[in-house]
Amino acid sequence: MRYFVIDCDTAEDDILSLYLLLRNNINVVGVTIVEGNISFDQEVKNALWALEQVNMNIPVYPGSRRPLIKKYITVEQVHGKGGIGEVLVQPQRYKAQNKHAAIAITELADRYSGELEFLAISPLTNLALAYLLDNSIVDKIKKVWIMGGSIFSIGNITPVAEYNIWVDPDAAKIVFEAGFDITMVPWDVVIKYPILEEEWNYIKNMNTRMSKLYISMYKHYREYSSNIQKINGHPHPDAITTAIAIDNSIASRIESNYVVIDNSDGFTRGMTLVDRFVADTRWSEKSNAKIVYEINKSKFMEKIYDLLNWF
Amino acid sequence: MRYFVIDCDTAEDDILSLYLLLRNNINVVGVTIVEGNISFDQEVKNALWALEQVNMNIPVYPGSRRPLIKKYITVEQVHGKGGIGEVLVQPQRYKAQNKHAAIAITELADRYSGELEFLAISPLTNLALAYLLDNSIVDKIKKVWIMGGSIFSIGNITPVAEYNIWVDPDAAKIVFEAGFDITMVPWDVVIKYPILEEEWNYIKNMNTRMSKLYISMYKHYREYSSNIQKINGHPHPDAITTAIAIDNSIASRIESNYVVIDNSDGFTRGMTLVDRFVADTRWSEKSNAKIVYEINKSKFMEKIYDLLNWF
Amino acid sequence: MRYFVIDCDTAEDDILSLYLLLRNNINVVGVTIVEGNISFDQEVKNALWALEQVNMNIPVYPGSRRPLIKKYITVEQVHGKGGIGEVLVQPQRYKAQNKHAAIAITELADRYSGELEFLAISPLTNLALAYLLDNSIVDKIKKVWIMGGSIFSIGNITPVAEYNIWVDPDAAKIVFEAGFDITMVPWDVVIKYPILEEEWNYIKNMNTRMSKLYISMYKHYREYSSNIQKINGHPHPDAITTAIAIDNSIASRIESNYVVIDNSDGFTRGMTLVDRFVADTRWSEKSNAKIVYEINKSKFMEKIYDLLNWF
Amino acid sequence: MRYFVIDCDTAEDDILSLYLLLRNNINVVGVTIVEGNISFDQEVKNALWALEQVNMNIPVYPGSRRPLIKKYITVEQVHGKGGIGEVLVQPQRYKAQNKHAAIAITELADRYSGELEFLAISPLTNLALAYLLDNSIVDKIKKVWIMGGSIFSIGNITPVAEYNIWVDPDAAKIVFEAGFDITMVPWDVVIKYPILEEEWNYIKNMNTRMSKLYISMYKHYREYSSNIQKINGHPHPDAITTAIAIDNSIASRIESNYVVIDNSDGFTRGMTLVDRFVADTRWSEKSNAKIVYEINKSKFMEKIYDLLNWF
Repeated sequence: MRYFVIDCDTAEDDILSLYLLLRNNINVVGVTIVEGNISFDQEVKNALWALEQVNMNIPVYPGSRRPLIKKYITVEQVHGKGGIGEVLVQPQRYKAQNKHAAIAITELADRYSGELEFLAISPLTNLALAYLLDNSIVDKIKKVWIMGGSIFSIGNITPVAEYNIWVDPDAAKIVFEAGFDITMVPWDVVIKYPILEEEWNYIKNMNTRMSKLYISMYKHYREYSSNIQKINGHPHPDAITTAIAIDNSIASRIESNYVVIDNSDGFTRGMTLVDRFVADTRWSEKSNAKIVYEINKSKFMEKIYDLLNWF
Repeated sequence: MRYFVIDCDTAEDDILSLYLLLRNNINVVGVTIVEGNISFDQEVKNALWALEQVNMNIPVYPGSRRPLIKKYITVEQVHGKGGIGEVLVQPQRYKAQNKHAAIAITELADRYSGELEFLAISPLTNLALAYLLDNSIVDKIKKVWIMGGSIFSIGNITPVAEYNIWVDPDAAKIVFEAGFDITMVPWDVVIKYPILEEEWNYIKNMNTRMSKLYISMYKHYREYSSNIQKINGHPHPDAITTAIAIDNSIASRIESNYVVIDNSDGFTRGMTLVDRFVADTRWSEKSNAKIVYEINKSKFMEKIYDLLNWF
Repeated sequence: MRYFVIDCDTAEDDILSLYLLLRNNINVVGVTIVEGNISFDQEVKNALWALEQVNMNIPVYPGSRRPLIKKYITVEQVHGKGGIGEVLVQPQRYKAQNKHAAIAITELADRYSGELEFLAISPLTNLALAYLLDNSIVDKIKKVWIMGGSIFSIGNITPVAEYNIWVDPDAAKIVFEAGFDITMVPWDVVIKYPILEEEWNYIKNMNTRMSKLYISMYKHYREYSSNIQKINGHPHPDAITTAIAIDNSIASRIESNYVVIDNSDGFTRGMTLVDRFVADTRWSEKSNAKIVYEINKSKFMEKIYDLLNWF
Repeated sequence: MRYFVIDCDTAEDDILSLYLLLRNNINVVGVTIVEGNISFDQEVKNALWALEQVNMNIPVYPGSRRPLIKKYITVEQVHGKGGIGEVLVQPQRYKAQNKHAAIAITELADRYSGELEFLAISPLTNLALAYLLDNSIVDKIKKVWIMGGSIFSIGNITPVAEYNIWVDPDAAKIVFEAGFDITMVPWDVVIKYPILEEEWNYIKNMNTRMSKLYISMYKHYREYSSNIQKINGHPHPDAITTAIAIDNSIASRIESNYVVIDNSDGFTRGMTLVDRFVADTRWSEKSNAKIVYEINKSKFMEKIYDLLNWF
């Protein structure tokens, strides 16, 4: 049995990630919410609503409503005002916990010490705060899976920075320097594996409850991705990260590198600078992250189709 | 009745500050400990030991052992390895709480909402963390008294930065931008009011238990201050701040200014940049701190002598 | 005989400085013009016009029209659109040289090697460029007199930065690190010695040609200084620097310090950080500037009155 | 007839670039020397010596011996102490001009106004200085060809920065923002086209005077490239740039992008940040450089073989 906390700034791909975990029998012991894609309160509602759809009342812990230090912006143009398009869902039965996500993380790390895995498909504020409250979680949390950053300076929120890291580069710096066993899935890798036209149509024709939900949730994001970002379809940054966390063999090339987080206030804010080239001018001999460079797309799609056939 | 949390990186002047509060019948509802002057563990021990000396078992909450993001250095050359000189005291009866200072602060702010005052004679990591966990403490904490920074770029840890702010400028930035009602006592003000030779001798001759403790605790710091910092005696940064918190009239000139904290990693790290000059090039029309520019030294000395006559 | 180049961003106080040199029989071998107070072309015209008033056809070399790297702003609100108020003067007889100031400086340094003094009452772009073209001018230029910076972080273009250094902090960094024999007259010193109401009235009543010119040139600046900057009159940053260059005893307290120029792009841009405090945390044991901390005002006023009685 | 200034920090690939120009009947009207690869004085000697080998006494103008503001390091470990290996050549007949490169550039831009092309296979200090002395060269210089930077944050002097830009990012910023018609050949493109083992052996067997010179000059660099940088052979950053300047069709893919130069003092110093991704978060709608993304290797090799068959 594997134990996960999933940290969300709950938009469509966060919800799909949560479902992937549940479908694959991961014991999700907490859903933590952090500032990011859309309004914080709607992010919390989205997580509760998503759990209601599958009738699983997993504890949802609202966490940080803002980055540690810097200002940030939400990206409703990308995900819609509601994060799954323009609709604002409202949970009917489940309620959020009255405990800060950071405190919950320290407690869950204690309870599942040596077993807990942390899946961050979101800015890293909650995990950083938990670490600041209790450094010992580094030894208790078995794995940290991160969707974030880029390896070749290809960004989505600035020309050179990926959103999750950009939102709270200070938190990211804390997390990357803390000593966790990190696997990082970069933006410039995931955009090489978008859902193509034929895949989108295939899903449309599956006609399961899950596939219908998928289509309705991703419609807005797909349009943004293809029209504005000029991606040939829509990518799955969070879901790919989650799939890799579930089955590491979905990552077909992984390298251990040393990553420096740029937490300046200037135009390089949020860059993930990778010390990867072999020469006599390296920053560090050690590595602090396993970086996914390539994935096995068909294996990933199997996971997706399996999920969409759930019910 | 006034309710205080006192936040210490416990060296000699922190202990005197604690005693000043107690002597003046302040209800000290918590002592929180933060990284700073000396080893964190000795700071905790010093606080417990200091409370044992006056037989008051006030809760001591160990907090952050490090700044939020940056690296820092302790300053044993200033305060001695033990913080009150080279001796390493060991508490015999009291024990620290098993609760992080930041969490304790949020709980105390709840319990004494609208009444609680926070006296920070130390880096601001604990208060920043408490605020990050619960923004509502801004409305619940009545006053924040801060020993830190300088108004004219006169530093003690770099040529232009004061130690408390320098240690954790990120925390300071969070605190100064949060909206607290802050009174700040800068380093370049307190060094104008050192304990002169005749005052030092007078205290030596008081021959109370407290005056003896004072002399033994300050001996190391006095030597550093006069020999290395070339101050004409030793200053009382923490104790002056505490005295002002107890009796605001000890501050004889206060101005409301807008203070920008420099949290860069460069040589301006930790500067407190004060927007004070009247011109057409101001950063802000609002102020975020009441800054003490001058103090009434004799009123302050009365408080000191009164304390030293306690027993 | 002393040989001077005077570097101007020609407003009222630059012109008075030029006249002070001439009145005191300094051999002004060149007037160089640099970006600064007002439009560059008007600065050149002002210099030529000022020389026409005293019938001395000294070569005027237009130099850099912009800082080395950063953007800057002119300050017509301070000096008027014409630099001597709103009037735009037009030289009738003299013409500027067709040689860049920086090249002229290297040639004059050659010609008057070991004798030449450089008076910079302006951003330091021209001197920096000259140095970049020919490092040997460090050995050939006997003295560099600089009006610029502040010692206690009191600014005029930002709350913490003085205009001349702020305009081109990169040039200032080059100049302060080059090894010149620098005497620096800071803004926060000169504003302690403004022309008071009685002095202003006295000058008004002198009724010489020079005093009339003075009143007409300073009227705009005086209003800005007293109304907007809340200085008790108007200060003489350039003229005080010039007077000290002419007679060093007008500086009544000078200290040799190590000055670091902040050439960042952030809110500390243009700060002159002075390593002055005696402690164990200094940046440097050596000094790179003689800083004027106090002046003898009456001696300075003698120089002014003597000039205004010239004719 | 085309008119070129070639700006060198003269190592093996600079010399080959010079020969490529001459072999292709470019009128090289000046060779300017700048700080970079090896000691400045040896760079000057190398240029003179290289011209002596082909009996063409083209004017060599020594320019800046240092970056505008920052400190830099030479890279003898890459090119050998002499820049063409460990041997220190000594010119016998030709002498350098007694005129600063920057001044020479402004004069040549005047003389060949609208025709002059500037080939910078070196840090950009000389061109930046020329521009600072005379902004009008932007309109007079027809093309600026630059070997420098990288598009995907792959560096050679730091993990993320290429040497030429890193040495003087301030100069690079000035040049990229000045408005020149720039074609930039990045490091991470040129390393895709190294001289492979079979090509190296083929050249060895050509047995011309030029091929022998080539082998002797590149031996050191080839060993560094393959052993330390783990490149599969040695690349031709300067020669590829020169070949493209001679025949633009050697660049098989060029995109116009907006490039931001990072001239900070931190770990991102010298990065060339390319605003290339199509999204709603771009820095600029305009471009300031034509960037070479791919080259036609066989066309390039033809140029090389043609040169090596010269004599």
